[in-house]
Amino acid sequence: MYTLYSMQRSGNCYKVRLALAQLRIPYELVEIDILKGESRTPEFLAKNPSGHVPLLEVEPNRYLPESNAILWYLAGGTPLAPDDRIHRAEALRWMFFEQHSLEPNLGAAWFWLTLVKGGRDLQVHALEDWMEQGYRALTVMENHVRRFPFFAADHYTIADIALYGYTHIAHEIGFDLTGFPAVRAWLKRIAEQPDHVPMEWQPARMAIAG
Amino acid sequence: MYTLYSMQRSGNCYKVRLALAQLRIPYELVEIDILKGESRTPEFLAKNPSGHVPLLEVEPNRYLPESNAILWYLAGGTPLAPDDRIHRAEALRWMFFEQHSLEPNLGAAWFWLTLVKGGRDLQVHALEDWMEQGYRALTVMENHVRRFPFFAADHYTIADIALYGYTHIAHEIGFDLTGFPAVRAWLKRIAEQPDHVPMEWQPARMAIAG
Repeated sequence: MYTLYSMQRSGNCYKVRLALAQLRIPYELVEIDILKGESRTPEFLAKNPSGHVPLLEVEPNRYLPESNAILWYLAGGTPLAPDDRIHRAEALRWMFFEQHSLEPNLGAAWFWLTLVKGGRDLQVHALEDWMEQGYRALTVMENHVRRFPFFAADHYTIADIALYGYTHIAHEIGFDLTGFPAVRAWLKRIAEQPDHVPMEWQPARMAIAG
Repeated sequence: MYTLYSMQRSGNCYKVRLALAQLRIPYELVEIDILKGESRTPEFLAKNPSGHVPLLEVEPNRYLPESNAILWYLAGGTPLAPDDRIHRAEALRWMFFEQHSLEPNLGAAWFWLTLVKGGRDLQVHALEDWMEQGYRALTVMENHVRRFPFFAADHYTIADIALYGYTHIAHEIGFDLTGFPAVRAWLKRIAEQPDHVPMEWQPARMAIAG
């Protein structure tokens, strides 16, 4: 059985937990509290030198980091991962966009505003940038879902899961989605997919780190 | 024939030009000078709403952005793209790492220090962050290439090409690689691959934007 090292309130980790639920893959969940330094212990760094979650143990002592690489690993060969050349490239295009243009802004804002006590005061100037760049990324997404129901291959794929991770909590960190009606309709569409689980959901089998 | 919209002095664009050369794929190159606003014209934004290069026209009026998605598109089915499940995931892992942890720091520093006149003065505080985060990413890479000759699949792949794009010019923007002997040996190994071309290299057939 897979073991997933994950933090419940991380959008990157949620992506993987959502895919695992929809693929109906059983796994053991190890909760890692990055705020308590649990991703920077020698034991964890031996598994992932980047010190990030999520991290999937794909076979005994073989660890795969990076949420979007994990999504491809898990979903390969299923309808969630396009396997023709152009649709695979387009799914990847949106997943690289997510890690480069969306997550560094929405994810950073989420971290400092909701997870770190007093984070807003520590990051006043950075927050301005994150909001500006975040809105720019949301505008690129809005332009796409105005014309297409999903981000790749005309059906629900891991590209949607990747983008959903932080976009669905954007309103909690002050992003006003009023001007993004197509993104809001897409968020609703994703939440209505079969076997969808919310960010708070946990599988039955959990372990505590350490 | 493919058309590649590219800027000669961009590491992200160089990745794609390097792969095209090594795959011996002919293409037409359209030089886009982002400093002159050529990636923000209505014509260019109609092709790529993100306003970024590289951009590959894969078929008439179908455009693929994101350097690493383009690498997968071009290299799929060749030895440059691992096709077994775990090695594909590990190549992706390093390519997401590149876009998330390396390129935003080395690429941003490269842009402001070498392309924008007076950029150093405009970005004094950001530069400190980029250097610190850039060294952290280089340390993760050093740990890997201390043990393995390449980043995925035990042979040269597009994961190496992706990471090479900005790492091979890190010294030009003030990164001291003395403490990274394995990264330096890897850089040399990549430069010695068959059909390697330097960043300055241009194909015979070029067009001017606009």
